[in-house]
Amino acid sequence: MPLTPEQKAQIEAQRAESSATRRPTVAALEEVLYQAQPVLDHGFVRVVDYMGDDAAIVAAARVSYGRGTRRVSEDAGLINYLMRHRHTTPFEMCEIKYHVKLPIFVARQWIRHRTANVNEYSARYSILDNEFYLPAPEHLGVQASANRQGRGDALTGDEAKRVMELLRGDAEQTYAHYQDMLNEDEDGKAPDPGRQGLARELARMNLTLNFYTQWYWKIDLYNLLHFLSLRADAHAQYEIRAYAEVMLETLKRWVPITYDAFCDYRLGGFNLSAKGLEAVKKMLAGVEVTQKDSGLSPREWREMMAALGRQG
Amino acid sequence: MPLTPEQKAQIEAQRAESSATRRPTVAALEEVLYQAQPVLDHGFVRVVDYMGDDAAIVAAARVSYGRGTRRVSEDAGLINYLMRHRHTTPFEMCEIKYHVKLPIFVARQWIRHRTANVNEYSARYSILDNEFYLPAPEHLGVQASANRQGRGDALTGDEAKRVMELLRGDAEQTYAHYQDMLNEDEDGKAPDPGRQGLARELARMNLTLNFYTQWYWKIDLYNLLHFLSLRADAHAQYEIRAYAEVMLETLKRWVPITYDAFCDYRLGGFNLSAKGLEAVKKMLAGVEVTQKDSGLSPREWREMMAALGRQG
Amino acid sequence: MPLTPEQKAQIEAQRAESSATRRPTVAALEEVLYQAQPVLDHGFVRVVDYMGDDAAIVAAARVSYGRGTRRVSEDAGLINYLMRHRHTTPFEMCEIKYHVKLPIFVARQWIRHRTANVNEYSARYSILDNEFYLPAPEHLGVQASANRQGRGDALTGDEAKRVMELLRGDAEQTYAHYQDMLNEDEDGKAPDPGRQGLARELARMNLTLNFYTQWYWKIDLYNLLHFLSLRADAHAQYEIRAYAEVMLETLKRWVPITYDAFCDYRLGGFNLSAKGLEAVKKMLAGVEVTQKDSGLSPREWREMMAALGRQG
Amino acid sequence: MPLTPEQKAQIEAQRAESSATRRPTVAALEEVLYQAQPVLDHGFVRVVDYMGDDAAIVAAARVSYGRGTRRVSEDAGLINYLMRHRHTTPFEMCEIKYHVKLPIFVARQWIRHRTANVNEYSARYSILDNEFYLPAPEHLGVQASANRQGRGDALTGDEAKRVMELLRGDAEQTYAHYQDMLNEDEDGKAPDPGRQGLARELARMNLTLNFYTQWYWKIDLYNLLHFLSLRADAHAQYEIRAYAEVMLETLKRWVPITYDAFCDYRLGGFNLSAKGLEAVKKMLAGVEVTQKDSGLSPREWREMMAALGRQG
Repeated sequence: MPLTPEQKAQIEAQRAESSATRRPTVAALEEVLYQAQPVLDHGFVRVVDYMGDDAAIVAAARVSYGRGTRRVSEDAGLINYLMRHRHTTPFEMCEIKYHVKLPIFVARQWIRHRTANVNEYSARYSILDNEFYLPAPEHLGVQASANRQGRGDALTGDEAKRVMELLRGDAEQTYAHYQDMLNEDEDGKAPDPGRQGLARELARMNLTLNFYTQWYWKIDLYNLLHFLSLRADAHAQYEIRAYAEVMLETLKRWVPITYDAFCDYRLGGFNLSAKGLEAVKKMLAGVEVTQKDSGLSPREWREMMAALGRQG
Repeated sequence: MPLTPEQKAQIEAQRAESSATRRPTVAALEEVLYQAQPVLDHGFVRVVDYMGDDAAIVAAARVSYGRGTRRVSEDAGLINYLMRHRHTTPFEMCEIKYHVKLPIFVARQWIRHRTANVNEYSARYSILDNEFYLPAPEHLGVQASANRQGRGDALTGDEAKRVMELLRGDAEQTYAHYQDMLNEDEDGKAPDPGRQGLARELARMNLTLNFYTQWYWKIDLYNLLHFLSLRADAHAQYEIRAYAEVMLETLKRWVPITYDAFCDYRLGGFNLSAKGLEAVKKMLAGVEVTQKDSGLSPREWREMMAALGRQG
Repeated sequence: MPLTPEQKAQIEAQRAESSATRRPTVAALEEVLYQAQPVLDHGFVRVVDYMGDDAAIVAAARVSYGRGTRRVSEDAGLINYLMRHRHTTPFEMCEIKYHVKLPIFVARQWIRHRTANVNEYSARYSILDNEFYLPAPEHLGVQASANRQGRGDALTGDEAKRVMELLRGDAEQTYAHYQDMLNEDEDGKAPDPGRQGLARELARMNLTLNFYTQWYWKIDLYNLLHFLSLRADAHAQYEIRAYAEVMLETLKRWVPITYDAFCDYRLGGFNLSAKGLEAVKKMLAGVEVTQKDSGLSPREWREMMAALGRQG
Repeated sequence: MPLTPEQKAQIEAQRAESSATRRPTVAALEEVLYQAQPVLDHGFVRVVDYMGDDAAIVAAARVSYGRGTRRVSEDAGLINYLMRHRHTTPFEMCEIKYHVKLPIFVARQWIRHRTANVNEYSARYSILDNEFYLPAPEHLGVQASANRQGRGDALTGDEAKRVMELLRGDAEQTYAHYQDMLNEDEDGKAPDPGRQGLARELARMNLTLNFYTQWYWKIDLYNLLHFLSLRADAHAQYEIRAYAEVMLETLKRWVPITYDAFCDYRLGGFNLSAKGLEAVKKMLAGVEVTQKDSGLSPREWREMMAALGRQG
């Protein structure tokens, strides 16, 4: 479990506090507020604040003076309409803040989404913990041959064992040398008083990319949906997908109507190109269409036929 | 007063609701939540939601697990440090949402700040109200001669009267013609059943720029401070400054420590250029410095001497 | 024609200049560089600068050291792949700068796209020209009944004539009063020396929303495509669509491979929802599907059936 | 030198190309276009494209039809004014694109600036080179005691030697294991045909943070100035400052007037707080002021007195 007793106590203390507010409040999300949901071997995701709910999207779209007395079905109709026609601004009116602990190589993919606010734990200022990611055996995939940026079946037996030993050994060794170069214990004292310590901002460069970092990450709902549509996708690297999947659960708690519309229009949908649309029209008219006729590339054809549940 | 009885009732209904929340809550801001603060003759600003408080800035800067038991003085020290060194990301961790009613020409200045989320009342979809801005007599300034984009003393007497008549007359006439072209009353019926109505998206082009529009506007604290530093400034046009000043009051209620730091480092500070710094050093050393010696332009020199409370 | 002889001469002078550059250069775009393409009755779009070309997208995707010796067909394959999988960052590596003259009500829609850089002609600082938009007879649409934010067939006969008279009359009158309040001619002198002029920043509020403004607008290719996908769409208001269509022509000149991919995947494509996809699968399997069975709303069903070229 | 012969040849081939263009062109920047400027032990910065020049800033601020016939001194006056009053939008009208090779821990600081476009070399898709950063002896600073995120004097003698051995040894070992796990040589063949290779997206996690990555990075001039004001600052970590300093040289070549204004108002200036301004006013009036009287914190006082060239 990724938390120290002290951290657990801080989280519980914060969960125990309660205030009265006039703001929109979402009970299902309050239930898990501040709680660390485990991800990978030492990571977590926890919601630390939020603004707005499904009704706030509707209020913004209507520029309302109050919460209104509309029924849920009307709200759902409007939210579906907004999602379908990519009216993005009402979704931007909700905001969520996460505290995430994640391996550095995952953080490097994640930070590419620039439309969020980030405060990362500083390794210039502080000393990183001795925590690094090791894949579970079933995720130790070989290089995919068809797709240059994917992975295939997991390694097994001696090969898997050897990879695990290398990853673990190098992480442990680089951390031991990091500590050695810092020459500073938890109380700020030098274990070897005969020498000075290397600056933190330099020593950190000796750590491997599977060490854990953590950050506060705040994003509006529209951009969160965009992040999730890319990172909960089957093409995303497993390690970041693991985070996206836990975040999808928080989305469902927070804005259930939006979550449903998102599953329908984004996660479960398929985008037909103009050529693909032509091919589908012909098929529906009973005309036989081949990949060559369609003008689609072999790969596009395969992807479309798979989505349509047909054999190419 | 800018609100209809129905709007007032909606606001009061929303103010009457209260929920329990685990989130950081700011009593001084809750006090005025949803209330419309009047601005200009028909406008208002009202806070409709917020996320975070002064302590949330500190928690983000420290990537904390809990609210901590630090004293207010320590939080103030850190917030001052962050403001002084322009560490922007912790301030981005707070967010506020306003509902604003404002003249279109003010909205056009305002929207230039692109780092906010906006939902504006749609004049393609709805019919605008018959409300337009007329300056109070003391704000009817003449064109400034020294500063091409400012205004000087107010017009008086017949001139002032004449300007007011022109502004009022044209606004009333263009609105009457807007209604005439729409040919649609409040219930969606045609006053003149013998003809069709012009599309709303076209008819609106006949309104003058002092008609009021409204929007939901959501922004993080860092970007709000940036907006306020420009729009609460003496160089800003009076009409947008009137909004900024009311928003400063909401800032003070929401994040009082940040507000103090903002007044000290931004609103009340002065940015010395390299040349200006050289000049001040000499003055402090007792050397007489003239504008010519300093390398500053006459205008820079005047601005600096004014800030230093000295005669050029 | 929207240009004065002096403006034409300035444009021609700039077109006559030529420099040698090592940068990627696109002959088809250079051909029209700086030229004003007319839009609506007094507006224009002109390209005033650009960075990159189709090959620059490929170079960025590959983080290349040189232009490479790849064939066009390989570049097209990669660009299609990037477009299909919404890999946005390589498209962000191209940039274009436009000078646009447009009615204020169009500018207000346009500015909602926040991911561009804008410098607008300042009516605080300068005096606006006496130019306003009047729709051509065929664009004088009535309010659509089915779609609350669209327009239907054009008004005709006396009704059309009356609308035109109102629009023209009010624009002419508000401009005359604008000039009167300013009391300042082209040379900065007061036509009526017996009185002062109202500040420009105030007088402008008397103009109607169909007056023309102008701006420099700079955007990266990815965000330009997003803008065009929304504004060249049939649901966009005609007046902004007129600009988008002229810009599509400049896109075709600038990055022809990207233009083709954009037409295939965005402009001509269709996004099937999860429910829509299920319905299409059934239809392909020869199963009769009705709107009710499908779970789609009547409107979604109509939109999908229209895209598939079938009767609902 | 960080380039292979093949990379050098690609760069030279691109430099040898020349086209005629109507766009603004900057000879001093063209001179070094595409050339790799060395930074640190294996890194570089090279400009691969640019848009605009000093005159383009002026043209945007004036929303001009042509290049105009203004004199350089007038342009400089306007650019100084824009810089002084933080009018940011005209500077956003210029754009520059860099190709940068840099250690991963530097890339992680750099990417925090979100207002740029980035394409990074993908270690999911490709295999990283065996190149890692080792500090030169004079940069092997100890942890600063006064400033928790800085470094002090360099380590010397055996301590320095030991740190270098640890850094070098761990980087070499983790790279060897990376290769071992990949089991793939430059031609895509398996050195050990008896086993499969671990996926690239996994194997990369074994590398230390001083390995080099590279990216295309494109940014507008305003945001570049912001980046440089933070990263060329004495408080920035040496390794990123080394890049900022090389980029300052490219800035000087590209937009020399803006560069001068930037040095005067940003790099060489000092921001007085309201309290600091009060203290300076008193000093100028001949009143003795102490830190306690001033209301400044001891640290603020030290910083201000240092800027004013006085002893606290």
